[in-house]
Order: sequence, then C-alpha cells, then structure tokens
Amino acid sequence: MSTARKILKLDRPFEMRRGGVLNDVQIAYETWGDLAFCADNAILIFTGLSPSAHAASSTEDGSPGWWEDMIGPGRPIDTRRFFVICVNSLGSPYGSTSPASINAATGEPYRLTFPVLTVEDIARAGHEVALSLGVRKLASVIGPSLGGMTVLAYCALFPNAARSVVTISGAARSLPFSIALRSLQREIIRRDPAWHEGNYATNEIPVSGMRLARKLGMITYRSAKEWQLRFGRERANSERKPGDPFGIDFEVEAYLENHATKFTGQYDPNCYLYISRAMDLFDLADHGGTVADALKRFGVDRALVMGVETDLLFPIEQQQELADGLKAEGREVQFARLPSLQGHDSFLVDMDRFRPVIAEFLEGAVIK
Amino acid sequence: MSTARKILKLDRPFEMRRGGVLNDVQIAYETWGDLAFCADNAILIFTGLSPSAHAASSTEDGSPGWWEDMIGPGRPIDTRRFFVICVNSLGSPYGSTSPASINAATGEPYRLTFPVLTVEDIARAGHEVALSLGVRKLASVIGPSLGGMTVLAYCALFPNAARSVVTISGAARSLPFSIALRSLQREIIRRDPAWHEGNYATNEIPVSGMRLARKLGMITYRSAKEWQLRFGRERANSERKPGDPFGIDFEVEAYLENHATKFTGQYDPNCYLYISRAMDLFDLADHGGTVADALKRFGVDRALVMGVETDLLFPIEQQQELADGLKAEGREVQFARLPSLQGHDSFLVDMDRFRPVIAEFLEGAVIK
Repeated sequence: MSTARKILKLDRPFEMRRGGVLNDVQIAYETWGDLAFCADNAILIFTGLSPSAHAASSTEDGSPGWWEDMIGPGRPIDTRRFFVICVNSLGSPYGSTSPASINAATGEPYRLTFPVLTVEDIARAGHEVALSLGVRKLASVIGPSLGGMTVLAYCALFPNAARSVVTISGAARSLPFSIALRSLQREIIRRDPAWHEGNYATNEIPVSGMRLARKLGMITYRSAKEWQLRFGRERANSERKPGDPFGIDFEVEAYLENHATKFTGQYDPNCYLYISRAMDLFDLADHGGTVADALKRFGVDRALVMGVETDLLFPIEQQQELADGLKAEGREVQFARLPSLQGHDSFLVDMDRFRPVIAEFLEGAVIK
Repeated sequence: MSTARKILKLDRPFEMRRGGVLNDVQIAYETWGDLAFCADNAILIFTGLSPSAHAASSTEDGSPGWWEDMIGPGRPIDTRRFFVICVNSLGSPYGSTSPASINAATGEPYRLTFPVLTVEDIARAGHEVALSLGVRKLASVIGPSLGGMTVLAYCALFPNAARSVVTISGAARSLPFSIALRSLQREIIRRDPAWHEGNYATNEIPVSGMRLARKLGMITYRSAKEWQLRFGRERANSERKPGDPFGIDFEVEAYLENHATKFTGQYDPNCYLYISRAMDLFDLADHGGTVADALKRFGVDRALVMGVETDLLFPIEQQQELADGLKAEGREVQFARLPSLQGHDSFLVDMDRFRPVIAEFLEGAVIK
C-alpha cells in the first residue's frame, strides 16, 4: 500500500443514487501541493476506470503515478501553484469502499450485494473528500475517460462547487456501440466458471475472463491506425508451439498477450463489473431534460473539452457535443480536437499533445 | 440438408498451401441458371466466413439464400443470363471437407489434425468446381468479405481463369486491428472449458465461447453510427432479473443476445477457428512481391471494387488500395465507395445500394 494514500471515513450513511445505503464508507485519495489560506487553489481529479488515486509521485511515495507527466512542480497541473487532489473512485478496489470491501454488517465482502453504482455516486464521494479538506470552491475539476463523465456528473450535482471544468475523452452518455463492448467484456468475465456468480475467493479470481476482457479493452482503447503503423503484419518472435494451430503468429497478438498478463490480478473482477456498468448507465440528460440543458446550468466560468479523433469508445462527436452544449452567456469554452493516433488512451501516452493545452488552460485560472 | 446442394469429390489428393495433404476432398456447391454451349457465361461466387453455398433459392430448394436479393431471374446476378456457381469454402462445415469431417484414415473427425487452412486453398477448391462443370473461363468471380479475399487469391493463382472480378468489402491482407479482434474471438472459444482442445463431442460444443465470439463479431460487423440511430439508449423490454446487477438493460444488449442465440449450434467451432485464422494469414503480397505487383498481374479485363465507409474490419482505405492497384494498361476498374451505415455487413442488408452497382457492372460483361 502506498504511504501517500489518505483515507476519508464518512461518519454518516452514504445513500446511493439508485437505491441502497452504504455504511462506514471510506474514500481513498492522495494530494500534492498546499491548500492556499483562502482555499481557492484546489484541483480535484477523477480517474478512468482502472487507476488508483496515485496520479503522481510525491515525497511520501516516489513511484510514478498514472499521470506522472501531467502533475508536479512545473508540470501542467503545477503543484507549486495548485493543491491537487486525486480520488480513488467509489467502487474501485484501491482503498475506497467497493464490492471487494468487507460489509461490517455481515463480516463478508459485499460482492454482488453492493448496490448499483452510478457515476454520480463516484462524483459525490469525491465531493466529500474536497469538503473534508476545507476546499470552498475548486479552481478546477478534471477527469479523463470515466473521469470525464464524473466531472460532468460533479458539475450537475454541485453546480457551484468548481470555477472551471476539464473533461478529457469523456461523454455526456455512452453510445450503444460502447455499451455493447462493455456489456460483452462483463459477460466474458461472468461466463468464466471461476467467477462463481461473484463469489470467487480472493486468490482464485476468474483470471481467464479478466484476461480476455482486458484484451478487448486494449483493442478498443487504441486505434487501428496506430496499430497499422506500429505492428503492420510483423510476425511475433516467439516460436509457434507445435500442435497449436491457433497460437501467437503476429506481433499484435504478442502485444495483447503481454498487456493482459500484466493487468490480471491487479483488479478485482466484481469492482470492474460495477464500474463498467456505471459508465453504461450514466446519462447527463438525467440532470435537466436534455444534455444541452444540463450543460447550460453548470456554474463554471470556464470549460476545456478535449477529445481525440481516433477514439472509438468516446468518439470526437461526443466531445463536440459537450463543447457546443457548454457554450453559455459569459462562459469561456475551449475545445481541443487532437489528432493523436492512440485512440481513447491518448491522454495517457500522447503527452506532448495534451500537456500544453492543459497547461495553458490552467494558467488562465483565476486564483484570488 | 438442402436438396440443391451438389458435391464434387476430388479423385486425387489435395495439397494444402502451407503443408499437409487432404485425401477424399469433397466440395459442396449450388448452381443457378444454365451454362451456355460455349461455356462463357459462368459466375463463381465465394462466400464470407459463415454462409453455406445456398446463396439463393431455386426450384430444388425454395428457402431463401444468404444473397437472395442479389441472385435470380431479373436480379443483378441474373440467372437468365448467367450460370451461377456458389461454393461452400473448404474448411466450412456445410458439406465441404473441413475439420469437422471424418478423416477416412482414422475414422475420426480431423479436428486439430486438419492442416493449416489458407484463403488460397479455398480459392483452389472453388476452381476445381468450376473446372468440373466444364467452365473454360469465368465471366466473373465475385466475393464479399472473406469471399473478397478469396477472389483476389483466385486471380493471383489462376490469372487467366476469369474475365472480370468483383471484390466487395474485401482486402489484400488483414490489418493488425482486424487480426487482434479475430485472435480474441478465437481465444474466447479456446478458453471455454467445453472446447476441450478441439475434442468436444458434436452435441457438446463450446456454446458459451461461441456465443461470446459471435457477439464480438456482431459488434465489429456493424457500425457505431447505425446503432446510435437504431438503438440510441433505448431500454430493453425484458424485466431485469432480481439479484442480477449485470443483466440486460439496453436494447442493444437484447439485440446481441438474440443474434448470438440464433447463431450458436449452427457452426462448428473448429471450422470457425480455421477459417478465421486463414483470414489473418492471407497476404496478397505473397503473390508477387507487393500487393500492387500482384494486382497488376491479374488477367482480368474488368474489375469492380466495392467498399463501405463505415466498415471497421475492412476499412475503405483497403478498398481504395485494391482499386488503385488494379489499374493497369487497358483494364477497366470501377471503385464504388458506399456510404452505407451497416458497416462490414452492408452487402447483406443495404441491398438498395449494392444491387444497382453490381447489376450495371455485370450488364457490361461480354458474353460471346
């Protein structure tokens, strides 16, 4: 466990948006930099589906975080200027209350007795962390992917809690193509006999299902164009096993195999199922009639919408919809349409394109 | 079994391109119309991955075929004018020799002892059928999807066997993105414990793996745009099962479920694995240095290349590559870039766009 991880324990029951109540909720988070005396320099970051709150290294934990190149002294999210908070999503297994947590009422993990999780629940858990730290109004709330959805939920639930918002490769709601892909990933896990209807032992998780779901994720997180340039029809180095007519022939297959192997065992399958489903269920139109209505009512003064042209899961048209919808009287809206080749994952890899845009936007943040 | 199905039995061993020999090969096919006295009005059709040779109804078999609207009297592939042959691919379970066939030498199905299958083997099996029917030179060789690859292999292997070629949503070779998706489909089947390393009993096939692979197929055969228009975020009618937090919520999930259920049991899993792999392995550049070199050497006078802008698996750029490469001295090349919404599957559903193009091209066919 990272020594930089802090835990907020809520002393009252947490009511879930779609019904059900969690007791003894805890939310894991990390922080970087210092909160100003007037508490106006805080940035709250929500993550994608799989990362922990460890977005960047710090003196307490020197290991690189998932957005290491983005956060730190002199980096785009500059920790000399901002007090940065990253929360581990409610429902995620890295310290926050989740389906893998022990339910004090039963002494057993929640597993499938965990209530339906929504993106709004994740947003509200993050809000609790900001409040607990004495933040009055966020300088910005920032999130990529699922985090991009979460910042929208955040601004809809707490319209005046942030002065600006940055959504990266997010969406106002999931399209049926993305729902279909995630639904299939979940079914792949649930059909693994080792899933046992969610009642697997911690050391006997449905590895095969998780590996296959991860490979499908990898395929949809990147782009066909990138792979064509990167792999072409290169053959894998590894010798084909004799008597196995369906082994690994191509470099792209070896790449997926390596990544799936790395991921497995790191993520609790039930947590994956709950968070994946939360993404399908999210619809910003639930907050005010239409997506456009909901966006207009956000209390932010400034918004940055970033998207990538090769994104299969959250296509660029969805980013355009957000940028258009955010335009309102007196609000400054910036839309960055990036030609990155790495698809949905670009915010993690194409740093040279993402960093300057975020740096410039945050330089314009007013801190009194 | 369809009564229109005919079988060609080869009386000599069939040498497979990547090694191995099959004895007692049989190739299933159907025909429509009559071969002209000078045998110059024949069209040979190769199929996609899953269909049988039953491309259209006939007096012997009145059930609709997989390309019913395309083939028949007065239809674009006009059976009053042409003698039409559709072959069941070698390796497919609908009557042709395949991994599901009994190996006479052992009395057991070939299963994984079947030699590596290539698109060239499928093309050569089709050529044997045409020869056996007394066809001297085809008026045209036509194929969609895998069939689109097969007609390319056919023209490369037998440069002077056809006067024209029609490739529909095909490709000169598979891109890494398509290879990755098919590789994952195969792995999903192979990881189903019921696959038993290929040694399942005929009545105990790996249903779960086949269903999941089929769903992934469905997702990639259509387009995100079509599904957005067709399903949006419509909720499924079926009641959510109590205590199942991951059941079917959305109409798109119900649609996939219905289609996967229909497909399962119809297709032998080992055959699927072999044919799917053949698509990955195909590379027209194996016939002459580069794709462009291979295409230039085709002996056809005319070529029609059709592709669809929303195709994820065989993207339109691959069709453009074929059309450009086919251009050679004195050869007439037509490229139809269609805006159909139904992705790779468009040739099966968007008939109003496909029919007139094929009809017009075939009207220009010279029959002496």
